[in-house]
Amino acid sequence: MEAFLNPVSVAIIGITRKSGPGSYNLMENMLNYGYQHKIFPVNYQAKEILGQKAYSNVKDVKQKIDLAIIILPRELVPKCILECAESGVKAVIVVGQGFADVGVRGKELQREIVKIAKDKGIRILGPNTLGVINNFNNFTTSFMPLNKEKAPIGLICQSGIFFVGARNFIGNVGKGIDIGNACDIGFYESLKYYGEDPDIKIIAAHMEGLEQGRQFLSLASHIAREKPIVIFKTGQSEKGAKDAASHSGTMAGHYQVYRAALKHAGVHFLDEDGQMVDAVKSLLHLPPMKGDRVAVITPTGAGGIMVSDAMERYGLKMASLSETTIRQIADLSPEWMPLANPLDIWPAAMKHKLKDVYPIALKAVLDDHNVDGVLCISIAPEIPEFAYLDVSEIINRIVSERPDKPVVVWLYGPNQKEINKKLEREERVGAFQTIERAAWSLSLLRERQHFLERAKTH
Amino acid sequence: MEAFLNPVSVAIIGITRKSGPGSYNLMENMLNYGYQHKIFPVNYQAKEILGQKAYSNVKDVKQKIDLAIIILPRELVPKCILECAESGVKAVIVVGQGFADVGVRGKELQREIVKIAKDKGIRILGPNTLGVINNFNNFTTSFMPLNKEKAPIGLICQSGIFFVGARNFIGNVGKGIDIGNACDIGFYESLKYYGEDPDIKIIAAHMEGLEQGRQFLSLASHIAREKPIVIFKTGQSEKGAKDAASHSGTMAGHYQVYRAALKHAGVHFLDEDGQMVDAVKSLLHLPPMKGDRVAVITPTGAGGIMVSDAMERYGLKMASLSETTIRQIADLSPEWMPLANPLDIWPAAMKHKLKDVYPIALKAVLDDHNVDGVLCISIAPEIPEFAYLDVSEIINRIVSERPDKPVVVWLYGPNQKEINKKLEREERVGAFQTIERAAWSLSLLRERQHFLERAKTH
Repeated sequence: MEAFLNPVSVAIIGITRKSGPGSYNLMENMLNYGYQHKIFPVNYQAKEILGQKAYSNVKDVKQKIDLAIIILPRELVPKCILECAESGVKAVIVVGQGFADVGVRGKELQREIVKIAKDKGIRILGPNTLGVINNFNNFTTSFMPLNKEKAPIGLICQSGIFFVGARNFIGNVGKGIDIGNACDIGFYESLKYYGEDPDIKIIAAHMEGLEQGRQFLSLASHIAREKPIVIFKTGQSEKGAKDAASHSGTMAGHYQVYRAALKHAGVHFLDEDGQMVDAVKSLLHLPPMKGDRVAVITPTGAGGIMVSDAMERYGLKMASLSETTIRQIADLSPEWMPLANPLDIWPAAMKHKLKDVYPIALKAVLDDHNVDGVLCISIAPEIPEFAYLDVSEIINRIVSERPDKPVVVWLYGPNQKEINKKLEREERVGAFQTIERAAWSLSLLRERQHFLERAKTH
Repeated sequence: MEAFLNPVSVAIIGITRKSGPGSYNLMENMLNYGYQHKIFPVNYQAKEILGQKAYSNVKDVKQKIDLAIIILPRELVPKCILECAESGVKAVIVVGQGFADVGVRGKELQREIVKIAKDKGIRILGPNTLGVINNFNNFTTSFMPLNKEKAPIGLICQSGIFFVGARNFIGNVGKGIDIGNACDIGFYESLKYYGEDPDIKIIAAHMEGLEQGRQFLSLASHIAREKPIVIFKTGQSEKGAKDAASHSGTMAGHYQVYRAALKHAGVHFLDEDGQMVDAVKSLLHLPPMKGDRVAVITPTGAGGIMVSDAMERYGLKMASLSETTIRQIADLSPEWMPLANPLDIWPAAMKHKLKDVYPIALKAVLDDHNVDGVLCISIAPEIPEFAYLDVSEIINRIVSERPDKPVVVWLYGPNQKEINKKLEREERVGAFQTIERAAWSLSLLRERQHFLERAKTH
């Protein structure tokens, strides 16, 4: 895998002579990305590409090539891989579509390149792939621009949509492997690579066909002890399952059983395209939840009811707060205010100040032995006029002093996005767009703890 | 209801002398909001408030008062309502908490004010309410700043969280009625008001206790023919249901039956706090979907599979595209590319240009008799470098020429938010944060059409 993610010399075979907008020039993108090592452009019609000497055939390079990226029409790919073999290349990325992803001829061609690669000792990533991202080495084979953050998030996917749409699906991706049709390099090796990679702390995978087999199950279970694994499985509908079955053969029938086994092995399964980004940030930054009892702090009773609904949906319980906790807020509230969980602090905040009441409530529930996790509701006011209602710094400070229970936050008001960013800057709390997502994230942290406990006893 | 939403003279009883940050001064907020009519501040300790003469008692005003807003501690409210009656006031808003929302004494006090109001011919909004918003008249009784857009969206809610968090829950609210504990004015009258209000085109309600009765059912069914109604029902969990039951008495047992009756009457029911904003914009701006057959245009196969999954979840079908439609994209694609629905246009876009292929595909599916609605996937690229991948203007133009089928869009890439705004500027398409939400929105538009067809035959 090192040749794919950390090559110090790459050949780009079939690279376009065009550059600039609309040219999808992979070499141009690679240079813009900041790749500092050797690039050999190969194009039989060009002498020079982007200021670098071009070769008419990969065999003419006559220097060590760690990785060859092939962007030729499908019928030309088998011959090209043979030429790569003759040039001593050990790793190739086949970018193009039109292989096992479509029709009889495509499948035939894919079998052919797999056979050549095996015979010649070459490893293939793809076909039908954008290749790799390695932000720790300023390297990508994508022809589309990507985020460049050195995030400890390793992505495995079967479509370039996760590279271009990384922020929509996952957040900032640090490394990415698009296995495409996965004719050779697949989930197993990619997962293993991230498992051993000190740059990576969490692994997010998009699977169309579910990777099968005892070997994968055992690897996932092993890695999940150290690094959370989330899998977004697509192709679950009747239509999708059919496609998946025709893709990978026999697996469709055993799907539910195998999925349950993977969940047992510590994998978090996702079903909707908006869940991954929240799952990744929760599992990466927040501690697992040791029990299922959640405390809710809220300046609105209505919000508290919404949380109760969501907790029930996700199998969590509303904690019975200790007398000590209740008393601390009761002392600040009007005498008529009954207090329980959700802990409605608004009457207290009207008598005193939100910024004075919030830290007392948050400390109390975090110190409460009846509480395993906390969902904070508060206001995201207009800044600066209403800055006195922004409790983000208070939450961050108190959570940093009591880091053992997960704290998730949902804010309402015009500045949700901006104040959520402040809340997440220190990577101790998770701030979510909806109550539903905040509650769901706690349930994932509960799932994580369940797995870690099982793993300890084995 | 006019006295509540369009008063030309208001008394604010118990108004604080403080102003500025942290004072929650309702009068200050009302003035900042742009209210142009008479305000009589009432505070027995003040001579002047915010530059206006203050009265020590409402009875001293001696001018016509359309609406009195009472912000006194709960024990003082009954006497104050009696004084309002003596001053000829016909409408009061009771802002404070501590009535039927809490304990025995609170319930007693609420019964007391209801009795006084009935005896004296006064209407009450609240208690436990932020009151009203009317952006068509620059009027609000909220002590928190709100959005001021004249949106044709009428909100009914039981908590101020929907005023302050309007954008999180609904979008821009044009008018709002927080019925709070609903001791007098409730859902029925508020719904009726919006039903007859030419400024309002859609009604969004938050219900803790579900409004019961044949009368409400019949009204909802009548209004829904003209204006979509969405209801976000909270308190569905075991705990929440208990609260709701103790609130409104006998209804809990019949909940599921009654909910089904309301759905049949054209009400769209929501269960999660993030759904309302998408439901409102879809039902407000997009046409109902005449059948259940959806076409998908996508530059990525993986995205197409995700849509297929979501369609199945929401009871919609993938359309069988006509030969004419398929042929138009096949002519632009490499010969090896098999085409169906989802319509994968990427190979065609690589041969030609995304901006040339997209309009042909979108026109074709909108003209296709096998298609009832369209879900478009495309890229939200960095601007301006990659503006050639932004198809938002193409989509807007083509949809404006063919407005009878709903078109929803999901974009992936770094500029989703910005390009979604462009897409929604003309209020013809809905642009969503996730595929899941885009698909779900189509299912709501299908639900709407089902109701309209039923309504026509009755």
